[in-house]
Amino acid sequence: MELSDNTIERICKVFGYLNPLERGAAEFVSSKELAKAIGTTEYTVRKDISLLGVCGYTRKGYAVKSLKEELGRKLNLNKKRKACIVGLGRLGSALLDYEKFQEDGFEIVAGFDCSINKLERIKTPIDVFSDNDIKEIVAQRSIEVGILAVPSQRAQDVADKLIGAGVKGILNFSNHKVIVPENVIYLNLDFTNALRFIAAKIMINQNQN
Amino acid sequence: MELSDNTIERICKVFGYLNPLERGAAEFVSSKELAKAIGTTEYTVRKDISLLGVCGYTRKGYAVKSLKEELGRKLNLNKKRKACIVGLGRLGSALLDYEKFQEDGFEIVAGFDCSINKLERIKTPIDVFSDNDIKEIVAQRSIEVGILAVPSQRAQDVADKLIGAGVKGILNFSNHKVIVPENVIYLNLDFTNALRFIAAKIMINQNQN
Repeated sequence: MELSDNTIERICKVFGYLNPLERGAAEFVSSKELAKAIGTTEYTVRKDISLLGVCGYTRKGYAVKSLKEELGRKLNLNKKRKACIVGLGRLGSALLDYEKFQEDGFEIVAGFDCSINKLERIKTPIDVFSDNDIKEIVAQRSIEVGILAVPSQRAQDVADKLIGAGVKGILNFSNHKVIVPENVIYLNLDFTNALRFIAAKIMINQNQN
Repeated sequence: MELSDNTIERICKVFGYLNPLERGAAEFVSSKELAKAIGTTEYTVRKDISLLGVCGYTRKGYAVKSLKEELGRKLNLNKKRKACIVGLGRLGSALLDYEKFQEDGFEIVAGFDCSINKLERIKTPIDVFSDNDIKEIVAQRSIEVGILAVPSQRAQDVADKLIGAGVKGILNFSNHKVIVPENVIYLNLDFTNALRFIAAKIMINQNQN
């Protein structure tokens, strides 16, 4: 199965859109509705879904429950994934309790920080540890994804520790690009770049009008 | 000037990469280095930059200072942009003090929440107000971008208020898709979708090996 990153990203969005639909007991969803929800065309939605080998588009649309089940199975999104957060400053500790992670199939099973002081003061139901325990805890708890919320100058060092301990994916919130081995999945969520993109588009819009 | 969103996004990343380079007093940067930093090819970097009408690629590469100046001018990234955050829960208040925003040309000039209680307790140097003051403060302080950190069921309502008050762009951290008029720039940063993408790619990687 050779899927482009764009297809995978769109399918993940479709999957995320099906969650509340299913909870709301919707039976069918049209490719039109899915296209609108994730910001693409109906054709692309149907093509992406068929690329995954999922059929079942009827006159009423896709059956919500079975579509979610099948997409989840193909991309392994049905099972709970274990993740940890490193860096428990304001952003990291906000992420530690970010309700959506839990709702959407991710379980934050540990937080790490290098400051014992911070570890003692933090209030959270999640277990927190010193950075020195990364290797042990990641292995013990079978953590697959590491979330970086450390200052940029520490990002590479922490990523190396996490990868050495066995995580398979890194989500980086610091705006320092981290180098990872080829077999590790890496994604950078850069808030400032998002704002910059908005600013640039505002300007382009204004020039066109 | 007709630029694709992908080009704009890459140029914003290049611009972000030039910031620390300039502070570090680097004189030149090669398209190879830029390509590596933002995760694309040298050809794409040079093409994107030339699409903006910026020339000046020499044997030593681009001159850092003038490249940054020119890209910033073309996409209007040199001037400080004013933004506000609505929703001062854990995530919102973490974003309120997110150092990178300030470093990178964005100024958070107000925070809003509907809970007076929360407004009284929060500790931040940024001015905070009740949601009821959105219209007045956005106009008074010429706020261009609104950042949503509210629970998903309030996202649309708050976005409508911000747009009514005159913001030109919305950055949405809730995972509820918000509908905006055509002339408003909209971007959704969905953490869970990022994690989902990583999980799916981990699985695909494992199947290939």
